[in-house]
Amino acid sequence: MRILFLGDIVGHPGRMVVEERLPALLDQYRPDLVIANAENMANGRGLTPKLAETLFDANIDILTMGNHVWDHREIFGYIDNEKRIVRPANYPKGAPGFGYILVKVDTVKVAVVNLMGRVFMGDYDSPFAVINQILEEIQSETKHIFIDFHAEATSEKLALAHFVDGRVSAVVGTHTHVQTADEQILPGGTAYLTDVGMCGPIDSIIGMKKDQVLQRFLTQMPVRLEVEAGPAKLNAVVIDLLDNGLASSIQRIALK
Amino acid sequence: MRILFLGDIVGHPGRMVVEERLPALLDQYRPDLVIANAENMANGRGLTPKLAETLFDANIDILTMGNHVWDHREIFGYIDNEKRIVRPANYPKGAPGFGYILVKVDTVKVAVVNLMGRVFMGDYDSPFAVINQILEEIQSETKHIFIDFHAEATSEKLALAHFVDGRVSAVVGTHTHVQTADEQILPGGTAYLTDVGMCGPIDSIIGMKKDQVLQRFLTQMPVRLEVEAGPAKLNAVVIDLLDNGLASSIQRIALK
Amino acid sequence: MRILFLGDIVGHPGRMVVEERLPALLDQYRPDLVIANAENMANGRGLTPKLAETLFDANIDILTMGNHVWDHREIFGYIDNEKRIVRPANYPKGAPGFGYILVKVDTVKVAVVNLMGRVFMGDYDSPFAVINQILEEIQSETKHIFIDFHAEATSEKLALAHFVDGRVSAVVGTHTHVQTADEQILPGGTAYLTDVGMCGPIDSIIGMKKDQVLQRFLTQMPVRLEVEAGPAKLNAVVIDLLDNGLASSIQRIALK
Amino acid sequence: MRILFLGDIVGHPGRMVVEERLPALLDQYRPDLVIANAENMANGRGLTPKLAETLFDANIDILTMGNHVWDHREIFGYIDNEKRIVRPANYPKGAPGFGYILVKVDTVKVAVVNLMGRVFMGDYDSPFAVINQILEEIQSETKHIFIDFHAEATSEKLALAHFVDGRVSAVVGTHTHVQTADEQILPGGTAYLTDVGMCGPIDSIIGMKKDQVLQRFLTQMPVRLEVEAGPAKLNAVVIDLLDNGLASSIQRIALK
Ligand SMILES: [Fe+2]
Ligand SMILES: [Fe+2]
Ligand SMILES: [Fe+2]
Ligand SMILES: [Fe+2]
Ligand SMILES: [Fe+2]
Ligand SMILES: [Fe+2]
Ligand SMILES: [Fe+2]
Ligand SMILES: [Fe+2]
Repeated sequence: MRILFLGDIVGHPGRMVVEERLPALLDQYRPDLVIANAENMANGRGLTPKLAETLFDANIDILTMGNHVWDHREIFGYIDNEKRIVRPANYPKGAPGFGYILVKVDTVKVAVVNLMGRVFMGDYDSPFAVINQILEEIQSETKHIFIDFHAEATSEKLALAHFVDGRVSAVVGTHTHVQTADEQILPGGTAYLTDVGMCGPIDSIIGMKKDQVLQRFLTQMPVRLEVEAGPAKLNAVVIDLLDNGLASSIQRIALK
Repeated sequence: MRILFLGDIVGHPGRMVVEERLPALLDQYRPDLVIANAENMANGRGLTPKLAETLFDANIDILTMGNHVWDHREIFGYIDNEKRIVRPANYPKGAPGFGYILVKVDTVKVAVVNLMGRVFMGDYDSPFAVINQILEEIQSETKHIFIDFHAEATSEKLALAHFVDGRVSAVVGTHTHVQTADEQILPGGTAYLTDVGMCGPIDSIIGMKKDQVLQRFLTQMPVRLEVEAGPAKLNAVVIDLLDNGLASSIQRIALK
Repeated sequence: MRILFLGDIVGHPGRMVVEERLPALLDQYRPDLVIANAENMANGRGLTPKLAETLFDANIDILTMGNHVWDHREIFGYIDNEKRIVRPANYPKGAPGFGYILVKVDTVKVAVVNLMGRVFMGDYDSPFAVINQILEEIQSETKHIFIDFHAEATSEKLALAHFVDGRVSAVVGTHTHVQTADEQILPGGTAYLTDVGMCGPIDSIIGMKKDQVLQRFLTQMPVRLEVEAGPAKLNAVVIDLLDNGLASSIQRIALK
Repeated sequence: MRILFLGDIVGHPGRMVVEERLPALLDQYRPDLVIANAENMANGRGLTPKLAETLFDANIDILTMGNHVWDHREIFGYIDNEKRIVRPANYPKGAPGFGYILVKVDTVKVAVVNLMGRVFMGDYDSPFAVINQILEEIQSETKHIFIDFHAEATSEKLALAHFVDGRVSAVVGTHTHVQTADEQILPGGTAYLTDVGMCGPIDSIIGMKKDQVLQRFLTQMPVRLEVEAGPAKLNAVVIDLLDNGLASSIQRIALK
């Protein structure tokens, strides 16, 4: 089984590059499942139901989220009934939506899990404790388990990946919007990449207008950040899974 | 002019891989200047005078540092008199050592600057204000300026790089120990890479023993971290500079 | 000389309690100068020109600010021309407004300084370096120097106070909205209180509606926080200065 | 029932002032239960078995802890078998020691709970979720429940107190080492004080030598911090409980 995962789609330029380039990628790689991180879809912050539909229309099967998941209130009720969107599983119990979902790919069930880091991020439940619980819940259902670990610190990302190495198919990181070059199959058979990067404007600072971000750093005053309008790149990763759920290959994609 | 820069050298395995692989790299790339980040040289934390000498003996010309610079007290007096070591320039005035140095490469002077980020790091002086001061001080001396920006957040790294784009030769990031895949020449002519990665043990969590780092995350209790002993990789970057000080190429290196 | 300082005035209830209780306080204590922290005046976040005028009308002479200073854009131009408002002096150079002001009280000039902490706060310039610069600038003008140090960590507040002990009249802390009980004259003669507290609603969490703040902690989701509407308390401090600028007494005030 | 609680005992001067002044306090207040926070007992960092015994010998019945609980490894096994020491309950499951204990006072059982905040502190389990679990476990055992909430942010301390208001006897804060002046009985009947303060050296920065702490702030370099040796103060709180477990009074104590 082959999974294609797209890094954080940032605003309109991110969506445009996905709509333009994804068809050729589907032709070339013929993935069985297409997943994308959509936490920055709505002008860089969060997701709306309408934009989610646009992404599904573009042949993305599943959307994952991150720290921006709640930026638009319309999403609250929507994701309670939309089993193609996964929000970080380590929010306290009672949060709207699903922390993992099971999706049928031909005859195989695949679990898609979204988790968030805590280091430099927020006071979420432990991603280590939560993934243990989830694996217990789903181990009788499937061995094909894909994790989008939305986190900042490389130490936490590597730690979680080694923690579940051999127990899941893949751990890919998101959130920094910069693709890392360390794709690998861990000793236990889990595919890993510290950060997939983003689908978003090239001449920007992690997707946002350079002058605005610079003003923030230079003045320490609040500056409204807008998504840069220029040409965008597409960052993604392709992972092949064996029948036992472990990974046989992982390949980075970076299109300009 | 060609500069070879090695990412954070982590402990004994890091030094071993540098000593083993650097000669062939020198043969292959024939750099005019070899720089390495040595903040993790002494068992993962800091640098000692003796270890610095070993690295100079291994044909590294200049050492840069980071947040671990003061971990060994013997370094305090040493770096006050050692013009081949650069510590972050944005420590408050009065700190031991040099925030930038000028080194003669044939007939050309090259400035090597070390800066630290503040986001998720510490209460240092503004790297933006400090680099402006430094550039004012050295602009009559040289146009060949290399910056090791030791920082965590991708936004701060990209922001600083764009801030000095066209005014310096290169900005390369260190600290996360994971190489990023975004090498580029910025619009103004400055070479850039978000993080060079590390020279250190492969089967580790950013250089340290996996089980120890995992214990920290799982228990939230203090656990002493030791450098992993196994085989190491070498992460580096090669940058070519034009006579006007701007960059003509940047190339990542990742040897296992 | 006697200075009366009011802790962070939080929203409408804060302004109401000040307007109701300040006249009697002026009668009772007969201060020569009345200062108040107004960073939470506008619905808990920032200050508007109109609300500033209301506070001046209520017989407050000088307003200090804090991390919320820029929450309303109308303040930007206003405080560039209003010498009765002081914003934190350790914003990078070029910020609107004044980091300290000199105010004439009868025949004596008093300097009012606003500084912010960095620990758990933000990447401001060093309050230690900045206060040294300010003291150099104003030492020929006055020995009566009042500092509102807007900071979170008790260690940083105490450290700054001891750093300037004997060089300024008073250091009082703001920001936590909870009055501390450690009023004292430091060994060098500077009056000190870790936090003055707030003028704001009693049955609240630092001024805001309890259920909203609790929802944030319980869900880790964004919840809009509103100022609690109920009855308010007034927290303040009265400080007496000698002719040499040092303090002879400091007294806490807490009215319900 | 009357409970006397002593704020963080800092090093030798802290222990000395407790040994000197506690006998008179016991005479004056005749508490039924004496509790003290001992996280800074061993030279400012942690606790040793031997020092714990010394505190029990000084007529303290129960010791609570905080973020420094694990600073001495000898404590690990000790607190697994010592039912008079309580460590923060919101460490991940499996941590040594007890997060709450039940102690018999005449015929009444009292629960003593230790919790830690997460804001500006660390990635512990949610204190809100954990106290809910604990209350469920012990509600059939006792209504006399005392919580030492070791936390930094006033918002988190007040939020937790209101969260359990009416369900526990008292929530008192520790960790900042500065006593606050906001002792109160909350609307539901729970006694509350944001921070009890410390038992430690007066002319210090939260217990440590002033010049060393200042060096840290001024240089941003690592400086070893030692407990100040001078005369100490004693900060405490006395709380009276009704038969229904709720509080009838709370009184601060600050002895120099
Ligand atoms: Fe993102
Ligand atoms: Fe994110
Ligand atoms: Fe490093
Ligand atoms: Fe580092
Ligand atoms: Fe405030
Ligand atoms: Fe504030
Ligand atoms: Fe503490
Ligand atoms: Fe403490």
